[in-house]
Amino acid sequence: MSGMWGNKLKVSIFGESHGVGIGITIDGLPSGVEINLEEVMKEMARRAPGKSNLSTARKEADAPEILSGFFEGKTTGTPLCAVIRNSDMRSKDYGKLKDLMRPGHADYPGFIRYNGFNDYRGGGSFSGRITAPLVFAGAVCKQVLESKRINIGAHVKSIGDIHDKSFYDIELSRELLEELKTKELPLLISEKEEEMRETILKAKKEQDSVGGTIECTVLGINPGIGNPFFDSVESTLAHLMFSVPAVKGIEFGKGFEMSKLRGSDCNDEYYYDGNKVKTYTNNNGGITGGITNGMPILFKVGIKPTPSISKIQRTIDIAEKKEAELVIEGRHDPCIVQRAVPVIEAVTAIGILDLVL
Amino acid sequence: MSGMWGNKLKVSIFGESHGVGIGITIDGLPSGVEINLEEVMKEMARRAPGKSNLSTARKEADAPEILSGFFEGKTTGTPLCAVIRNSDMRSKDYGKLKDLMRPGHADYPGFIRYNGFNDYRGGGSFSGRITAPLVFAGAVCKQVLESKRINIGAHVKSIGDIHDKSFYDIELSRELLEELKTKELPLLISEKEEEMRETILKAKKEQDSVGGTIECTVLGINPGIGNPFFDSVESTLAHLMFSVPAVKGIEFGKGFEMSKLRGSDCNDEYYYDGNKVKTYTNNNGGITGGITNGMPILFKVGIKPTPSISKIQRTIDIAEKKEAELVIEGRHDPCIVQRAVPVIEAVTAIGILDLVL
Amino acid sequence: MSGMWGNKLKVSIFGESHGVGIGITIDGLPSGVEINLEEVMKEMARRAPGKSNLSTARKEADAPEILSGFFEGKTTGTPLCAVIRNSDMRSKDYGKLKDLMRPGHADYPGFIRYNGFNDYRGGGSFSGRITAPLVFAGAVCKQVLESKRINIGAHVKSIGDIHDKSFYDIELSRELLEELKTKELPLLISEKEEEMRETILKAKKEQDSVGGTIECTVLGINPGIGNPFFDSVESTLAHLMFSVPAVKGIEFGKGFEMSKLRGSDCNDEYYYDGNKVKTYTNNNGGITGGITNGMPILFKVGIKPTPSISKIQRTIDIAEKKEAELVIEGRHDPCIVQRAVPVIEAVTAIGILDLVL
Amino acid sequence: MSGMWGNKLKVSIFGESHGVGIGITIDGLPSGVEINLEEVMKEMARRAPGKSNLSTARKEADAPEILSGFFEGKTTGTPLCAVIRNSDMRSKDYGKLKDLMRPGHADYPGFIRYNGFNDYRGGGSFSGRITAPLVFAGAVCKQVLESKRINIGAHVKSIGDIHDKSFYDIELSRELLEELKTKELPLLISEKEEEMRETILKAKKEQDSVGGTIECTVLGINPGIGNPFFDSVESTLAHLMFSVPAVKGIEFGKGFEMSKLRGSDCNDEYYYDGNKVKTYTNNNGGITGGITNGMPILFKVGIKPTPSISKIQRTIDIAEKKEAELVIEGRHDPCIVQRAVPVIEAVTAIGILDLVL
Repeated sequence: MSGMWGNKLKVSIFGESHGVGIGITIDGLPSGVEINLEEVMKEMARRAPGKSNLSTARKEADAPEILSGFFEGKTTGTPLCAVIRNSDMRSKDYGKLKDLMRPGHADYPGFIRYNGFNDYRGGGSFSGRITAPLVFAGAVCKQVLESKRINIGAHVKSIGDIHDKSFYDIELSRELLEELKTKELPLLISEKEEEMRETILKAKKEQDSVGGTIECTVLGINPGIGNPFFDSVESTLAHLMFSVPAVKGIEFGKGFEMSKLRGSDCNDEYYYDGNKVKTYTNNNGGITGGITNGMPILFKVGIKPTPSISKIQRTIDIAEKKEAELVIEGRHDPCIVQRAVPVIEAVTAIGILDLVL
Repeated sequence: MSGMWGNKLKVSIFGESHGVGIGITIDGLPSGVEINLEEVMKEMARRAPGKSNLSTARKEADAPEILSGFFEGKTTGTPLCAVIRNSDMRSKDYGKLKDLMRPGHADYPGFIRYNGFNDYRGGGSFSGRITAPLVFAGAVCKQVLESKRINIGAHVKSIGDIHDKSFYDIELSRELLEELKTKELPLLISEKEEEMRETILKAKKEQDSVGGTIECTVLGINPGIGNPFFDSVESTLAHLMFSVPAVKGIEFGKGFEMSKLRGSDCNDEYYYDGNKVKTYTNNNGGITGGITNGMPILFKVGIKPTPSISKIQRTIDIAEKKEAELVIEGRHDPCIVQRAVPVIEAVTAIGILDLVL
Repeated sequence: MSGMWGNKLKVSIFGESHGVGIGITIDGLPSGVEINLEEVMKEMARRAPGKSNLSTARKEADAPEILSGFFEGKTTGTPLCAVIRNSDMRSKDYGKLKDLMRPGHADYPGFIRYNGFNDYRGGGSFSGRITAPLVFAGAVCKQVLESKRINIGAHVKSIGDIHDKSFYDIELSRELLEELKTKELPLLISEKEEEMRETILKAKKEQDSVGGTIECTVLGINPGIGNPFFDSVESTLAHLMFSVPAVKGIEFGKGFEMSKLRGSDCNDEYYYDGNKVKTYTNNNGGITGGITNGMPILFKVGIKPTPSISKIQRTIDIAEKKEAELVIEGRHDPCIVQRAVPVIEAVTAIGILDLVL
Repeated sequence: MSGMWGNKLKVSIFGESHGVGIGITIDGLPSGVEINLEEVMKEMARRAPGKSNLSTARKEADAPEILSGFFEGKTTGTPLCAVIRNSDMRSKDYGKLKDLMRPGHADYPGFIRYNGFNDYRGGGSFSGRITAPLVFAGAVCKQVLESKRINIGAHVKSIGDIHDKSFYDIELSRELLEELKTKELPLLISEKEEEMRETILKAKKEQDSVGGTIECTVLGINPGIGNPFFDSVESTLAHLMFSVPAVKGIEFGKGFEMSKLRGSDCNDEYYYDGNKVKTYTNNNGGITGGITNGMPILFKVGIKPTPSISKIQRTIDIAEKKEAELVIEGRHDPCIVQRAVPVIEAVTAIGILDLVL
């Protein structure tokens, strides 16, 4: 059991990559919030593949149909369910993979977990495609948060060993976050785009894939949000981040770097900016004791390279119980990082809305 | 609301540093499991301060009294509650801190969160002391896990810039994990101990503190444990880790390093070791698609330096709404990392037991 | 927030009577259980209106489409979502009711609860129609329970003041429960059917409606299922029963009658029937201390008369903030009791499966 | 697993009748609410046995010690835990009951549920004594509710076949509810007290026990509280009521009586009392569609006779797997109804506070 999450806001996700449809139910939304569906579709488009040679050529229509909880352009406050029907499924590409466990994928753990009864086609319920409903839900939550003047944005912090600047190096603003959303490769240093594209395409050419990191921020959140044991802001966000396939690490504020430093380097000293309490630095990424301190929330996630690669790999044949070789054919993403940016923003929006409601 | 966590196993924590007592209730334990209380006390002792000049001289009796759920040496299956009464409280040390918000601590976020009504003495409900009940609960869960041949162990991976070897560099065994538990500074390379002690004492002498990292492993866990969206093994463990004060980062397997690599470097290829499925490498730390693959679970957490330092710091006086200077007196930990090792193990035990029940 | 329920099994419901569609997601089902969809459709048909002059002439297609969690005829173990699209909606019948709060309905409480933004058409999210997804989920759960030799059945115990026999008066058997499912008015004394029909049609003719009671049983459940504080079998079932519109009372075993009796009349004395522990009587309805004792679970729910009646009623106009008169037109159920039978069975199945998983 | 309950307010209960202690943790209380401990003790005293010959002569000190979450006379907003240490335990009275399963008690279901490892002494975790922490928690919640002008009160509606008037027959007021709290047998018709005492003492004399009903009301609650599917006010309250030992039935408003009536008899017609919306009748007990309509909440619970009777009873010896006779010695309550009144109020307070927070 796993497909439901939340406290004050609850989401319930369903669907398999090559089944009839995928979707999500969002419960606990406030009633009467106007939702701009065009904006929602823009968010969906950010995640969709097939935009360039950086991602799989597979097209996903990703057209969510809202079934409930939305009336005359506004949330009703009752469960809002949206469904995306599957299409462009080339199930035959995957059929022969049934018994060959793809390394780095969930095939083998999933086979054991579900006693061989799960829908294996295209990764089934483990597919990255299942993040589409998350992006839908996040897009709705973002609009609710915006009505509270809370904004969420993220950028690609690195692809392989090519690094963008950090949010720490610049002045954060809502405008900047909006601008980042318009780009396929959202970067603070646009000049890095070419290098990153090359890194991705080189991996693709070599039948391989490449990982990266994403930095995310939440602006406009009040102090005093969150809880000590056990639902800190960090616990809430980390829980959701590790629901996103391929995320293997998260750090808040300066994170692992802080483990090398002294307390006097890390403590964020307070001052008054008029009536508003601020800190001179933001090493803790806006969270101390698990609770927001009023500074922007800042965190970074590490994304592993897509496990789907075309190179020959050693694996096992689970039906014949013997070792085997595997070449994954079909269309794959040489890099999933840029497509993961709106997903990271989306689950952040879901988590933050749960905390502030 | 925050003090309760879990699905099949549930824990409910309570207490403030300088209140009457602290404790935890564990619900959902299987009935009839023998619990060796001496072993539990050993775990409590590992976390307790006052053992050497590496930690605060403050003594904490930390003697848990079991009130329920334990009968004739065995778990009953009903809620097991243990209480630790507070003592050695020098509340006056803290009294004057009431209005001066300590940088890096939860004072200010907590003040806002609870409208100024929380017990501020000694960090109150945010105090590291509240991890004592977690260690108690973890010690009970560890024994239940051991009856299923699942073992948990951790070591100090680094203090400041002094690094121990990684679990990746050695052969993992239950015996090694047991041995590590006997040391104040559990290390794979004992020779590093002296350097680390010096790093800590140097920081202490300079009225400062220092951070570090902890590496943790789970041996003997079956494949197929965990869930995709939203309760992956990573989500479950990360949620609990970020409940532990001072944890600011977590990575599973090779974590952030994987973000720099190619898919062909990161994918763990399968083979049969007799009937048992294994992988040649374990870059994913025993988890793919959020579910165990049968290899040891491996992860690392980053711990920030203790925010309590004796240096003069700039802060605000929340009562007078003005800026102020602060010198934190009293007894502090110059480094919390070694004391956090049993806490990290404990919350791992709680999380893993919830998943395998 | 309200649309999600469960512990080991979780359901998430959505939909409004006159929206695009309604449905349910079931999470936590075991994998590999064969589901006979024809049987599911039979259950759906039992609830559907329009079968005779006892219920509304409104037709509801009630054709659930399974979107996920079901592969090659079996459950996958991942969330199973089914959607029923709405049709035959005569929204105009309801439009003028927008501001006139129907007595006995949720119109006014719902208006306040959702600040006037809920979909009021046809009762919206409060509509009896939302029980269709429950019947779907219950039909799936029933089949899982049947694979464990647990059977659920119910009958109309009374309509108005016409009473059927009680399950207490007869020998319970799986065959009997199956036979009851084939009838529009499932009764133990078939001869009562005519009287009950007359009672309903008389109410209908007089532009009124009539209530009744339903008795339900669970056969084949093992002893030792359930929990003391707070998730007793009674708590679990009662929670679900009061989610069903129009249920206003529940009693387990002899229920309220026991409040008039002596302990010596109510205690169920134990004996051995071979190796099996039984009780001579079953006054407690198979549950003592909140936990099953191995005897059949027996309980009764009270259903109020449908609040939709064609008589003139006094009410308020919420827009004009004044008193008004109301005549509810359109097609109504003069009695909902017989249609509620499969709904009561369905939520029982959901609750019992959650407890036995 | 069972000892935790709640959504916005969470309670976690623990303890066995003859163990070290019992208690409860309340999480999610608002911070800064003044709690009058004397009032709390008065509530505890209402439940305590040994006050007269109507209840067991067993004395229970029932002195709760607050360990956390309470600072300078006010709630802190962090988990509030209170512990009651056990005393006056005559464990020997119960020892010989270990293998003889008392009819009507949880002995046998509990033995199976916990594989024989539960603390059987005095009913263990199933003991009515475990309601003491509930009364404590309820007393705290009541004070929080009173600060919102919400009041809860109950009376003995019947003992055996002696009936008090109903709340429906009188004018409800806060003063009345306060007055009822001062009586051992809280009745609307004081003259019935003598008859009820006689009924109880007659049962006692005949080594038997007697049941009854309790009627409860919630005054001052706003309309719009609660949820449709699955957390209706009725679901929430019924869930909690059936956690209280010996409760076997609940009905809201006119409950089962409504099942005999016509819709036109049951619908509560609306009118304006100034700006306030009211209904001419309150057959639905203040709840329609699972949501409050602003009228007083009214419900009735049925309490079975105490299963502990001194008469010879037939039962089984679980160790020797044979049938046996049983005479329960020791001190028992010939009637638990009057002592259950503050318990019913307490769990009502817990449920209502969870809904209104």
